[in-house]
Amino acid sequence: MDHEIRSLSSTPVSTQEITLAEYLFQRLNQVGCNTVFGLPGDFNLKLIDKIGNVPNMKWCGNANELNASYAADGYARIRKIGVICTTFGVGEMSSLNGIAGSFAEHVGVLHVVGTPTISTQLKKLLVHHTLGNGDFNVFHRIYSEITSYHVMLQDIDLAPLEIDKCIVSCILNQKPCYLGFPANLSDITVPKNLLNIPLNFSSPISINKIETERDIIQSIISLIMSSKNPIILADGTCNRHDNIFKSIHDLIRLTKFPVFVTPMGKGSIDEQYPRFGGVYVGSMSSPEVKEFVENSDLILAIGSILSDFSTSSFHYSYKTKNVVEFHIDYVKIKNARFPDLNVKSILSKLLSSLNNLIKDGKFKYNASKKLVPQPPKSKSNLLETSVLRQEWIWDQLTNWLREGDIIIAETGTSAFGIMQTRFPNHCLGISQVLWGASGYSLGACLGALFAQRDDLEVDKLRKYKRCIVFIGDGSLQFTVQEVSTMLKWNFHPYIFVMNNHGYTIDRILHDSTVHEPTYHDVHPWNLQGLLTLFGGVVEPEEDQLNTENQALSKALNGPIYNPQNNTIKWPTTPVGPNCKNYRVELVGEFSKMVNNPAFSVPDKLRLIEVILPTMDAPNNLIRHVRTMQQKKGSVCSSTASTPATTSTVNSTIHSSTHNNGML
Amino acid sequence: MDHEIRSLSSTPVSTQEITLAEYLFQRLNQVGCNTVFGLPGDFNLKLIDKIGNVPNMKWCGNANELNASYAADGYARIRKIGVICTTFGVGEMSSLNGIAGSFAEHVGVLHVVGTPTISTQLKKLLVHHTLGNGDFNVFHRIYSEITSYHVMLQDIDLAPLEIDKCIVSCILNQKPCYLGFPANLSDITVPKNLLNIPLNFSSPISINKIETERDIIQSIISLIMSSKNPIILADGTCNRHDNIFKSIHDLIRLTKFPVFVTPMGKGSIDEQYPRFGGVYVGSMSSPEVKEFVENSDLILAIGSILSDFSTSSFHYSYKTKNVVEFHIDYVKIKNARFPDLNVKSILSKLLSSLNNLIKDGKFKYNASKKLVPQPPKSKSNLLETSVLRQEWIWDQLTNWLREGDIIIAETGTSAFGIMQTRFPNHCLGISQVLWGASGYSLGACLGALFAQRDDLEVDKLRKYKRCIVFIGDGSLQFTVQEVSTMLKWNFHPYIFVMNNHGYTIDRILHDSTVHEPTYHDVHPWNLQGLLTLFGGVVEPEEDQLNTENQALSKALNGPIYNPQNNTIKWPTTPVGPNCKNYRVELVGEFSKMVNNPAFSVPDKLRLIEVILPTMDAPNNLIRHVRTMQQKKGSVCSSTASTPATTSTVNSTIHSSTHNNGML
Repeated sequence: MDHEIRSLSSTPVSTQEITLAEYLFQRLNQVGCNTVFGLPGDFNLKLIDKIGNVPNMKWCGNANELNASYAADGYARIRKIGVICTTFGVGEMSSLNGIAGSFAEHVGVLHVVGTPTISTQLKKLLVHHTLGNGDFNVFHRIYSEITSYHVMLQDIDLAPLEIDKCIVSCILNQKPCYLGFPANLSDITVPKNLLNIPLNFSSPISINKIETERDIIQSIISLIMSSKNPIILADGTCNRHDNIFKSIHDLIRLTKFPVFVTPMGKGSIDEQYPRFGGVYVGSMSSPEVKEFVENSDLILAIGSILSDFSTSSFHYSYKTKNVVEFHIDYVKIKNARFPDLNVKSILSKLLSSLNNLIKDGKFKYNASKKLVPQPPKSKSNLLETSVLRQEWIWDQLTNWLREGDIIIAETGTSAFGIMQTRFPNHCLGISQVLWGASGYSLGACLGALFAQRDDLEVDKLRKYKRCIVFIGDGSLQFTVQEVSTMLKWNFHPYIFVMNNHGYTIDRILHDSTVHEPTYHDVHPWNLQGLLTLFGGVVEPEEDQLNTENQALSKALNGPIYNPQNNTIKWPTTPVGPNCKNYRVELVGEFSKMVNNPAFSVPDKLRLIEVILPTMDAPNNLIRHVRTMQQKKGSVCSSTASTPATTSTVNSTIHSSTHNNGML
Repeated sequence: MDHEIRSLSSTPVSTQEITLAEYLFQRLNQVGCNTVFGLPGDFNLKLIDKIGNVPNMKWCGNANELNASYAADGYARIRKIGVICTTFGVGEMSSLNGIAGSFAEHVGVLHVVGTPTISTQLKKLLVHHTLGNGDFNVFHRIYSEITSYHVMLQDIDLAPLEIDKCIVSCILNQKPCYLGFPANLSDITVPKNLLNIPLNFSSPISINKIETERDIIQSIISLIMSSKNPIILADGTCNRHDNIFKSIHDLIRLTKFPVFVTPMGKGSIDEQYPRFGGVYVGSMSSPEVKEFVENSDLILAIGSILSDFSTSSFHYSYKTKNVVEFHIDYVKIKNARFPDLNVKSILSKLLSSLNNLIKDGKFKYNASKKLVPQPPKSKSNLLETSVLRQEWIWDQLTNWLREGDIIIAETGTSAFGIMQTRFPNHCLGISQVLWGASGYSLGACLGALFAQRDDLEVDKLRKYKRCIVFIGDGSLQFTVQEVSTMLKWNFHPYIFVMNNHGYTIDRILHDSTVHEPTYHDVHPWNLQGLLTLFGGVVEPEEDQLNTENQALSKALNGPIYNPQNNTIKWPTTPVGPNCKNYRVELVGEFSKMVNNPAFSVPDKLRLIEVILPTMDAPNNLIRHVRTMQQKKGSVCSSTASTPATTSTVNSTIHSSTHNNGML
C-alpha cells in the first residue's frame, strides 16, 4: 500500500527514468536473454506491454504454459538463462512441472509471474485465479520448493536489486528463480542509470578458503601424479557453466587423459576427439566402456550434479576411493567433502599447477599407452526392404549429423538410442536425463531454435546451425501444440517422430501382471495432417531438385532486419511452403531420405514419421532389461505370474525397482 | 522398510484377501466412480494393472496429465468424485494446476500418485522423476497446499483406512485429496471383508451445536417472517452436494420465493421455473436482475463458496444486513458467523419449521406479488447474410438446447455469453468461474462424457443426454490433444470453437499502452484438419438425410456389453465415420445448421468452428467494460497515453484493477 501511495507522488518522469518492467527486460537483454516465453493473462499484460520497448527483446507467445516452461529451459541450456512470464495462479501452476525439471537438471530459468496489485493482495480481495480463500502467498510458497531464489516484489526502491539478484542467481547457480511482479509496479519508474551498474557475478572467497583450495589442489595433484590410468568424466553442469566448460577442455588438452561423459554430460565434449571414449552409464554402459572406466585408478568427475550414484536400477561400480568429484560449489576427494568452494577457481588453479609441472618436466602422461574404447562398428546390416529398427537408425545418424547441430532426445527409447550415436564436434546434446518429463523435448526444441536465432542476431557465424529432435509418438501427444509456435516463427527444425504406437519404454521395462496391457498404447494419429492443422504451408510430396547450395541460400533468406527500431523480424506468414511431411517405414526409404543432400539443409520445418515395430528398442536398453531379468531370475527362482503369493511378493518388489532408475 | 520386510512374511493369499490396489478401485466403484483418468509412468504401472480386475472400472488414458486433471474435475462435478492417477514427480507436477482449480472451485477429485517404493524413499536413492536431492517429500508438501486431505501410504494395516478417508473427504468436503501410493504396496494384500464396512459419511454434531442450530433456525425464520421481498440465491456448492441440491429445490417449492443464481451456481436451478429470475453477477448483472436482487430485504444465499463478495472489478452491492449465507460448514447471518456446522442439517430443519408454519397458516408469501425479471427478448435481428455475433448466438442457443444437456463454457467470452442463455430444465452448467484456467473446458468435457456414459451403465434412462462445450480458439490450443481421447472412446460431444483469432477477453479488458498489441493473437489453425489428425473418421461434407429417429438409433448402438467379465466395451475403431466438421460464418449458415433435426442428435463427435469478428463479445461483457471506462474517466480526467507521468501512474493503478476481477 505504502509503495502505491508513494508512487503517486513520485518525481516527474524524465528520460532518466524507466519503468520497472523495462528495467527487467533491459537487464535480461544485457545478459543475452532476448526471447520471453509464456502466455498473456490478467496479471502480466502490463509486463508484456513493455517488451517491445527494449531493443532486441521479443515475446514468443506459446500455446500453453507447460510448453513455455520447457522452451525457457531449452533456451537456457544454450544461453545460460531463459525466461518465462506467466500470469498468477493458473499460469504459474500450469508451468510448475517445467520449472521443477529445471531445478532437477540445473538449468537457469527465471520465472516472472505477473501478480495482482499489492493493494489487492493486502486487502485479500476476491480475484480470479486465486483459491478463493484470500491466500495470495500459496503459489509463492509452492515455488519456494523448486527454486534457488524467490521473491515477491513489494518495495519499489528494492525492486531493481531484487531483479538483479534473480538474474545473477539463475546464471551463477544454474537453478530456476521466481520473481513475483505485482501489476501495479510495472509502470512505476526507477532511475535509468541503475542499468549502468554491472551485474555482480563474482563469488568472493574468504581467506580460509584460499588455504583449503591450496590443500585440495595439492591432494589432487598427488593423486594425478601417482595414477597409472586416470580418466576424465564430464557430467551435467559442464555444459551449463562456461567456465567449467572451458576448464574441462583445457584439462583434456593439457593432460590428454581419456575422457568419457555421463548421459547428462553427453554433448559437452567433442566426440570426434581421439581420446573420447564414450558414454558411461554404470552397469548400462557398453562392456568396453564399463571395463575402461571401472578399472581406472583415478576418475576426475567434472561438473558433477549428483553426489551419490547409487540408484535403484543400476550402479556406478567404480570405487569411491578413486574419484574426485568437482561439483559447482564443492569438491569431493574420495570420501572427503570440501564444501562452499568455487569450483571454477579450483579448476583454474589445478590447471595452472599442472601446467607448471609439465613445463618443469615433472609430469608426463603417456597418452598412447592405453587406447580408449572405439565406437562399436555397426552390426546391423539390414536389407533395403527391411522394416526400420532403432539399432540401425541410431548408427546411421552418426553419419547424418553435422558440426553445429543441436540434438534433442526425448525421455524413452530415444534417450537410450542417442547414447550410442557419436556426435560430430561442436554439437550440443539436450536430454532430460534425471527429470524425464514426457513431451519435454518438443518444448525444449522451440527454446533451442530461439537461442540459435538469437545467436545469429549477435553473430552471423552462428555457433549452432540445425536443431534436431527425436520424440516418440506417445510423448509427442503431451506437447504437440508447440509445433504451431515453431510454424508461427517460421523455424526449420527436424522433428523425428519415432512412431511405435505408444510408450514402448514402459512396455519393455514394466513386467506387467496383465496379459497384453493396453495402457501403453496411444490413440493413433494421422501425423501427416499435423502441419496443416497447425497452419503450416506444406510442400508437396515430389522430391525437390534443389542442390544443397540452392537450399542453403533459401534458408538464409529468413530474417528481415528493420533498421528503424534495430530489430529482426521473421516472416510470420511464409509466401511459399514452409514445412514438409516425411513418412519412412523401410530401411531403403530412410537411407534415400537422409542421403538426399537437400534433406540436410534446414530450409523448412520437417516432420519425419519413422514407423517402428512396437517392441523395437536400442541395444543398450535391451541389454539392460536382459541383465535385470537375469538378476531377478537368480534372486527368486520361482517367478509365478499370479500375484500376491509370498514368493511373488518377493519377486514383485525386486521387479518394482528395476524401472525406478535414472533412465 | 519395516512394511516391506513384514509383507514378505505375510500370510498366504486366499480369496479372502485382495491387493491394496484393488481395494482402492473397489472402494471407488462403490461410490460410483468408474473411470480412472491419468497416464502411465514408472511408478503407477502396478496400480493401473489392477484396474481391470475390478468390475465396471476402466482406465481412460489421457494425452497429458493436465488434461487428465481437468477431466477428473469434470467427472467429479457430475458424480461427486473423480479420480486421477499419475506417476511421481513429473506426473503430479504436470497436473497441479487442475487440482488447484478443483480446490478453488470445490470439486472432489482424488489424486492417486504412484510413488517409488518405501525403501527407495527411505534410502534416498537417486531415481528418475526426483529433484536429485534425495527429497521424496517435496511433491507431497506442495500438494498439501491445495488439498483438504493428503497422505503418503506407509503402513499396510492403516492403508485401507487412509484410502477410505480420502474417498470420504472428497465426497463430503468437495475438495481434492492426495493419496501417495508407494509402488511396493500395490500388490500387498488386505482382508477383502474390509470392503463390507460401509464408508462413513456422517458428520457428528455435538450437543452444543444442536442448541446453536435451534438459535439459527429461529433467527432465520424470524427474518423470513418479517421480510417483504425475500429471494433465494443459489451459489457454487448447490450442484456439488446432493443434499444441498435437494434442500434448495424443496425450499423453492415450499416458499415460492424468487430464485437467482450466481455464475458458479448457474445450472443448479431449473431455469424454466416461473420464479427463476436470472444470473446475478453484482454490478455486471442485467439492470433488471441487479435492481431486483439489490432491493431485496432478505437474501438466502445457499451453497455459498465465497464469504466476501468484494472483488477488485465489481461489487455485490446488496447490504450485508440482508443476507443469510449457507456455506457447507458454517452459516453467516448478517454479520454474525456460526462456524463448524452441518449445513445439510440446518437446511432440513429450516424446511421442516417452515413447513409447520405454512401448515399452521402462520406464514404466507404472496408469490405473484412481484414478478421476477424475464429473460430480455432478443434485440439482435440479424440478416441471414450477416456475419455472426456472439450476442445473437447466445440468444439462439436458448432454443437449441434440450433437457438433459451438459453445457460447458470456457473462461473468456463464452463464460459471459452462457450467462445470458436460459437453459432448459434438468441441464447442468459447468464453468470454472473463479479459477478460470484456459483450456479447462475441453478436459472437463471429456470427464463429463465419461460421467454421462457411466450414468448410462447404471441407468438406461440416463439423466444427461448430450454434452456441449463452448471454447475459444485461443483456449483450444492449451488442451487440444484431448479431442484425441474423445475419439479414442468414440464419444459424441458438440465442440463449438468460437474462433475470434485469439484471446478476445484480454483484448477487451486490457487497456494496453501498446498500439495494436499482437500478443492477444494466436497462430491461426486450420481447424478442419483437427479431427483427421487425431484419428477421427470424418463424415463427408454432404448433408445427411437422416431423420432424427434414424440418427438416434445409430447413437444408441454405441456400447458392446461383454457378459463374460461384466464390462462394457466401447468400439475404439469405428466402422464408419465417427465425427464431422462444421464451419459457420454467417447467420444463415448457423441457423440452417442448428435447425436441421439431425444436427441435434448426438450420434457423432461434432467440431463446429464459429467464425467471429475479432472484437465481438457478449453484451454483458461490453456493458461491464463501458462501466469501467466511465468510472475511470470520472476518477482521472487526464488520460494521457504516454506512461509514467504522475497523473498516468494514477490512472494506471486504477486501470490495473479493472481486469483483476472474478471474470
